[in-house]
Amino acid sequence: MSWQEYLDTHQDRFEQELLDFVRIPSVSARPEHMRDVERAARWVADRLAAAGIENAEILPTTGHPAVYGDWLHAGTDKPSVLIYGHFDVQPAEPLDLWTSPPFDPEIRDGRLWGRGASDDKGGMFIPILAAEALMAETGRLPVNVKFLFEGQEEIGSPDMPPVIAAQRNRLACDMIFSADGLQWSAQEAQIVMGLKGLMGVEITVDGAATDQHSGLHGGGINNPLMALSQLLASMKDAQTGRITIDGFYDDVIDLSDEDRAEIARVPFDEAGYLAETGAPASFGEEGYSVRERLWARPTLEINGLTGGYQGAGTKTVLPARASAKITCRLVADQDPERIAALIAAHVEAHLPPGVTAQVDRLAGDADPFLVPRGHNATRAAEEVLAETYGAAPYITRVGGSIPIMTLFLRELGVHGVMFGFSVGDENLHAPDEFFRLENFRRGQTAYCRLLEKLGG
Amino acid sequence: MSWQEYLDTHQDRFEQELLDFVRIPSVSARPEHMRDVERAARWVADRLAAAGIENAEILPTTGHPAVYGDWLHAGTDKPSVLIYGHFDVQPAEPLDLWTSPPFDPEIRDGRLWGRGASDDKGGMFIPILAAEALMAETGRLPVNVKFLFEGQEEIGSPDMPPVIAAQRNRLACDMIFSADGLQWSAQEAQIVMGLKGLMGVEITVDGAATDQHSGLHGGGINNPLMALSQLLASMKDAQTGRITIDGFYDDVIDLSDEDRAEIARVPFDEAGYLAETGAPASFGEEGYSVRERLWARPTLEINGLTGGYQGAGTKTVLPARASAKITCRLVADQDPERIAALIAAHVEAHLPPGVTAQVDRLAGDADPFLVPRGHNATRAAEEVLAETYGAAPYITRVGGSIPIMTLFLRELGVHGVMFGFSVGDENLHAPDEFFRLENFRRGQTAYCRLLEKLGG
Repeated sequence: MSWQEYLDTHQDRFEQELLDFVRIPSVSARPEHMRDVERAARWVADRLAAAGIENAEILPTTGHPAVYGDWLHAGTDKPSVLIYGHFDVQPAEPLDLWTSPPFDPEIRDGRLWGRGASDDKGGMFIPILAAEALMAETGRLPVNVKFLFEGQEEIGSPDMPPVIAAQRNRLACDMIFSADGLQWSAQEAQIVMGLKGLMGVEITVDGAATDQHSGLHGGGINNPLMALSQLLASMKDAQTGRITIDGFYDDVIDLSDEDRAEIARVPFDEAGYLAETGAPASFGEEGYSVRERLWARPTLEINGLTGGYQGAGTKTVLPARASAKITCRLVADQDPERIAALIAAHVEAHLPPGVTAQVDRLAGDADPFLVPRGHNATRAAEEVLAETYGAAPYITRVGGSIPIMTLFLRELGVHGVMFGFSVGDENLHAPDEFFRLENFRRGQTAYCRLLEKLGG
Repeated sequence: MSWQEYLDTHQDRFEQELLDFVRIPSVSARPEHMRDVERAARWVADRLAAAGIENAEILPTTGHPAVYGDWLHAGTDKPSVLIYGHFDVQPAEPLDLWTSPPFDPEIRDGRLWGRGASDDKGGMFIPILAAEALMAETGRLPVNVKFLFEGQEEIGSPDMPPVIAAQRNRLACDMIFSADGLQWSAQEAQIVMGLKGLMGVEITVDGAATDQHSGLHGGGINNPLMALSQLLASMKDAQTGRITIDGFYDDVIDLSDEDRAEIARVPFDEAGYLAETGAPASFGEEGYSVRERLWARPTLEINGLTGGYQGAGTKTVLPARASAKITCRLVADQDPERIAALIAAHVEAHLPPGVTAQVDRLAGDADPFLVPRGHNATRAAEEVLAETYGAAPYITRVGGSIPIMTLFLRELGVHGVMFGFSVGDENLHAPDEFFRLENFRRGQTAYCRLLEKLGG
């Protein structure tokens, strides 16, 4: 029997097991579900062992646990592959919007409905089943495999950095695949090559010691709200959308013709995009397409600004203080620390007279992430996806950050590849989350093929 | 006996009467004191009659009443003079900060302590006493005199415009003196020549229909907070402080050499000004002194600005909307309507791409006020003050607005002269308000001299 026959034969059992897995309400954001997250960890460790994975164990953290398991007998000439996913889920509220209960999942219309079915219990179960099929049919795996599953992805993985740092040797690997990822659409695959980094600052401008009367002091002293507006305006060209902070683009890796062609190949419906956001027109850095800007160019956004009187009507106050929160989305090879320093220098150089300013760092730094062209694991994943879907995957990027990917890169020195089979329309963080069983099966086949290819 | 002897002889009684007047807690802002404001109106009407003023009566309004009285037998060759003041007072809270109770006034150290002693019961009582002295000694007044006292100045005179419009014929006059005014200092007089006008708008900038994720949409659509900052920054030069709205200065009457010399003669302690406001440096329109800017140049101030996330830490939101409240202080001959139109045109012309903007007017318009050079009533007041203080009064302006002055100008066509004897350090709107009895007496003499001079 081939591994494909094994998968086909046992699909009913796999679906029942996934239903069991989804029944565990492992909501990491809710303290009352702490034991459920632990139960899910136990379920995963047991399931790894049942699949033939060795050393399956729970890794305690200062918060929700992680699970590790490995099979390392492929030989030293074979690569070591780390596979990642998470077994915690988003809160299910509001419960009354669910067609069937979030933690009493059911199968309807070829879909498995329940909280976590798609994000990421269905996703992370796939590589375990692939391993089981390969082990069952061949008694071994084509490569050395390490599994790492976490129980706190949905709350931002607060306790994972020290765990990964501490387990650096055990987690050492040649390639990383994340089973927490999205296809491009229900029938189209993608390879995510880039993620943006993140850097935040708060700028506070002070003038008078307390709010003043705008009639008695207007014209005598500067207005922190105006000075802050002038500072912020000096950071971006209103017409070209270019960020005008000295040195901001210095470390940006320019898009190559090949990069631009890949991005242009991905369908983009600008009218649909505007309808979705409700914005009257698109806007961004001159010389780049909307999608290039969204995926591959750094941005500077004011997230919030406050100062003076905010109630109804008029209050003729000349405010003492104004402040703005800014985050920049960064692309390779921009460095959060360096960008923060450039902003601070810009504020110092452009500060209007008669006020003082302070620039404070905000938490949440993330390095940008860009898979190098020709990256071995990515090439293998592309080939497998092309075989599995009958068409080359789209080569995409994401405007947001995925902290675990940058964490792996920093601690293990490896660019992870997102190799997942969920679809963005599956209500991942909303009521009526579901997972397409067709993609559940397709993913198992794809993971078997991937491991074979890597071992070949 | 001369009127000066009459005043000297009766000063004790006058002080006792002012104590009685202050005992009435005529707090216009507090509904529970409505009857007290009426009692104060009654006290004023009776006191006018006792001084020999005719037709003393209460003028009802839709809110707190006013009081009118006149003496019109000086002859048609003599001017008609309207004298204004107010008998309502500020709330007295916090009561525990008063040395003696606000409405149980007492005399200590040559000062009369109590709420309203200085603002404006002491002030408005002065011209009544001057009229009494003149009537007692000569049986007549040197000019035709009309008194108008209101009971709602401290709440912005909401019901006075229709009353003054309705009584336009009865209030018709050649000159207006306001007994609600300040000396320059305890021993120095001033003539206020100019007041600023007021105009307010709220600018709202809209982008996406709802707040968006700054990672997923940054670079795709414009950010209303950035667009608003750019719009606001485009309204004022950060270095020169000049307002850069097309046509903004068109109607401004430039300062003449004489104007500038008058302003320069008034002492100004910039270090003291900065210590008072706590601002690190003065700032304003290039080419003008601080005092010129505060008194005689129009300003544009952002009173409040809001948009996006304002809590602690970071929220990576690309806000859907941002808005700012702006007020301009205007100088003669700027027109609030025209300035509002110029701002709206500026917003339209400078609106960054990818957003929409709306400009809404805010309530509270006031026309600027500037006494014409050579104005008869002002010249007479200057001469009397010079005689009374032994030095020429400072010629000053005020950065704020005084609605009753612009209301008189609009309805009666007369530039009022502020002729008052309070001092800015007398805790006018604070605990321990007091009035210097020395200035109470000096004011009576000055009003007698003024009426005599006007009739001469």
